[in-house]
Amino acid sequence: MNVKALIRRVNHTLKLHKLFPEHSRILIACSGGPDSMALLHLLQDIAAHRHTKYKLGIAIVDHSIRPESKDEVLWLQNQVDALGLSFYTTTFDVPTLSKDLKLSEETVGRQVRYQWLNEIAHSEGYDYIAVAHHKDDQAESILAHLIRGTGLNGLTGMAVVSHDYDIPVIRPLLDVTKEELLAYLADRKLTYCIDSTNDDIRYQRNRIRHRIIPELESINPNVVDAIARLGCSVSEDLAVISNLTVQAFERLVTIDKNEMRLSRKALRKEPVAIQRRLWQRLMSSIDSDITLTTAHQEQLLDIVNTGEGKTFTIKSIKVTAQCDTIKVYCKH
Amino acid sequence: MNVKALIRRVNHTLKLHKLFPEHSRILIACSGGPDSMALLHLLQDIAAHRHTKYKLGIAIVDHSIRPESKDEVLWLQNQVDALGLSFYTTTFDVPTLSKDLKLSEETVGRQVRYQWLNEIAHSEGYDYIAVAHHKDDQAESILAHLIRGTGLNGLTGMAVVSHDYDIPVIRPLLDVTKEELLAYLADRKLTYCIDSTNDDIRYQRNRIRHRIIPELESINPNVVDAIARLGCSVSEDLAVISNLTVQAFERLVTIDKNEMRLSRKALRKEPVAIQRRLWQRLMSSIDSDITLTTAHQEQLLDIVNTGEGKTFTIKSIKVTAQCDTIKVYCKH
Repeated sequence: MNVKALIRRVNHTLKLHKLFPEHSRILIACSGGPDSMALLHLLQDIAAHRHTKYKLGIAIVDHSIRPESKDEVLWLQNQVDALGLSFYTTTFDVPTLSKDLKLSEETVGRQVRYQWLNEIAHSEGYDYIAVAHHKDDQAESILAHLIRGTGLNGLTGMAVVSHDYDIPVIRPLLDVTKEELLAYLADRKLTYCIDSTNDDIRYQRNRIRHRIIPELESINPNVVDAIARLGCSVSEDLAVISNLTVQAFERLVTIDKNEMRLSRKALRKEPVAIQRRLWQRLMSSIDSDITLTTAHQEQLLDIVNTGEGKTFTIKSIKVTAQCDTIKVYCKH
Repeated sequence: MNVKALIRRVNHTLKLHKLFPEHSRILIACSGGPDSMALLHLLQDIAAHRHTKYKLGIAIVDHSIRPESKDEVLWLQNQVDALGLSFYTTTFDVPTLSKDLKLSEETVGRQVRYQWLNEIAHSEGYDYIAVAHHKDDQAESILAHLIRGTGLNGLTGMAVVSHDYDIPVIRPLLDVTKEELLAYLADRKLTYCIDSTNDDIRYQRNRIRHRIIPELESINPNVVDAIARLGCSVSEDLAVISNLTVQAFERLVTIDKNEMRLSRKALRKEPVAIQRRLWQRLMSSIDSDITLTTAHQEQLLDIVNTGEGKTFTIKSIKVTAQCDTIKVYCKH
C-alpha cells in the first residue's frame, strides 16, 4: 500500500466516527516507538489532506522501567521541537508503584499514563487524546480476552472512540496493520526508538505477539484481519443485546429508595442472555465494583426459575425472593 | 474426579437436554480410540445409573487412510461381541474420494461417515446417533473457526444436540475434558486404539491441539474451560439475535411467487447486526448455497442506507432498488 492509500484509510476511520473536525486540538500519546511516531506524522498528513490545521501536542511518560527511557524522552523532545509542536513529559516510578499496589507493571503503567494524559489534555485545552493502537494490537487484545476467559464484551476489542476519562481517547489506526505502519515510516524515512522489552515473552502481550499469532498465521496468514473483523461484528451484535438489556431493565426493575424489586414471572420470559446481563446491570447500579461470576449468575437464574423463598448475599448486596417478588438491596 | 462424579456430569448434560429416555436405541459412532471407547462404556454406566436399559449399537467406519485401520475394526468387533452389542462397519476409500471431490480427507471423511451413520440408524431403528466430542474438541473447534474467520455463529462451537440429518446427533461428553476421559479409562482398566495420525501436525486440528492450545495454556492453564464457556454464552446471545432476525424477517419481507420485497425505510430502523443476518436469511431462502461475504453485506447495507436506484447480482440472485422498494429474485 502506498502512503496516499494509507492516509485515505485513516481518514476513512476518522470520518466514520466524525472525528477531528477543523482546528481540533489533539494530544498524541507518544513513546517514541514506531506506532506512535507514525501516528504523529499521519495526523499531520490528515490535516494537510483535509486542508485544515490541527493543534497537535505530544505527550510522553517515562515509566522508569528501562534505563534508556530517559534518553528516549530527550530524543523525542528534539524531534517535537524540530516540528514546532508542544511537548509534555512526566516520570512515574512504575516498578515501585507496581510493588506497592500489587498490580502488574503493565496495569499500573496504563493507569498512571491515561490519568496523566487526561490531566494534561484538560489543563492545556485539548479536545482529544490520540493513541497509536493498530490492527495487530486489536487482534492481540481480543486474543488476550479469549485466553483469560470472556463473553461477548471482551471480544469487541478496543473502540475507535472511548470515554473512560473526561477527554475522549481516539484510536485512528485500528484499521491499519503494524506492517503497514512500518512501510509508511520507511517510505517517509522517519526514525523511531525500539523498546527492548517488546521481545520479552515474560510479558503476556509479547507471548501472544511472538508465539501465538505466528502459530495462528501458519493456519491462516490473514488471521489478524479475521480476528479484528470478528471484533467489529461482535460490537454490532453486542449493541443489539445491550439495548435489549436496557429496555428490559426499564420495564422490569422497580427502583425504590432503598431497594430494587423484580417479578420472577416477568423475568422468566426474558432470554437467559438478557437475564444474565440484567442482573449484572442491576448489581453494578448498586455497587459499581461488583462483577458477577458465572456461579453468581447461575444462583440468580436459579432464583428466577424456582418459586421457592430464598435469601443470599453477593458481597455487599442482599437478594431475597418470596412468592413472585425478588428484592435487591445494599446491606449497609 | 472419580468415576461416579463423571457419570453424574454426563447424566446432567443429558438431563438438561431431556435426552435418552428409557429404552432409547442409541447408535454410537466409534473409532476404537479413547474418546469413543469411553463414550461406549459411559453410556452403559448411565443406563445402570438410571436403572434402565438402552439398545446400544456400535458403528465404525474404515476410512482406508492408515494401514492399521482394518485391524482396528476387527479389534473393535471382538470388544463389541464380548459386550453382546450390535456391530456395524463399512469401508470408504477416503483418499480417492478426497482427490476426486477436491476436498480434504477430513471433510470427505466426515461427510461419508455421518451420512452412513444416519443410514444405519434409519434402517436399524435407532433413535439417536451418539458421538464422542468432548470439551477439548469443543475448544479446538471454536479456535478453528476463530482462526479461519467467523462471526458469532462459529464461536458457539458444537451443540449437544444437532439436527443436520434425520436422526439427531448427540454429544454427551461436551462438558468432560479429554484428561477426565483418560482417567476414566485407566480407572476402569479399559483398552483402546491409538490413531497414529493424531500427532501429525500437517492436519490443522492437530496443530491447534499440539501447538496452539499448549501456548494458550502457558498464559491460562484453564483456557480450554474458558473457551468452552465462551461457546455456551455465545450460544445464548446468538439465540436472542437469531430470534430478532426471524421476527424482523416476518415483519419486513413480503414474499410473492417470484420475488421478495422490502422497504428501505423500514430496514434502516433495524440495527446493522440484524440487517446483515436478515439479508443472509433472505438469500438462503432463495438459494441455500449462498453465503454472503462481508463485501456482499456492505453492498446490501449500502443499498439500504442510500436512496439511489441500484441493480446488482449475487450469484444467481438479482437485487434491484428503486425509490423505497428493494426487490430480490432469482435470475433463472
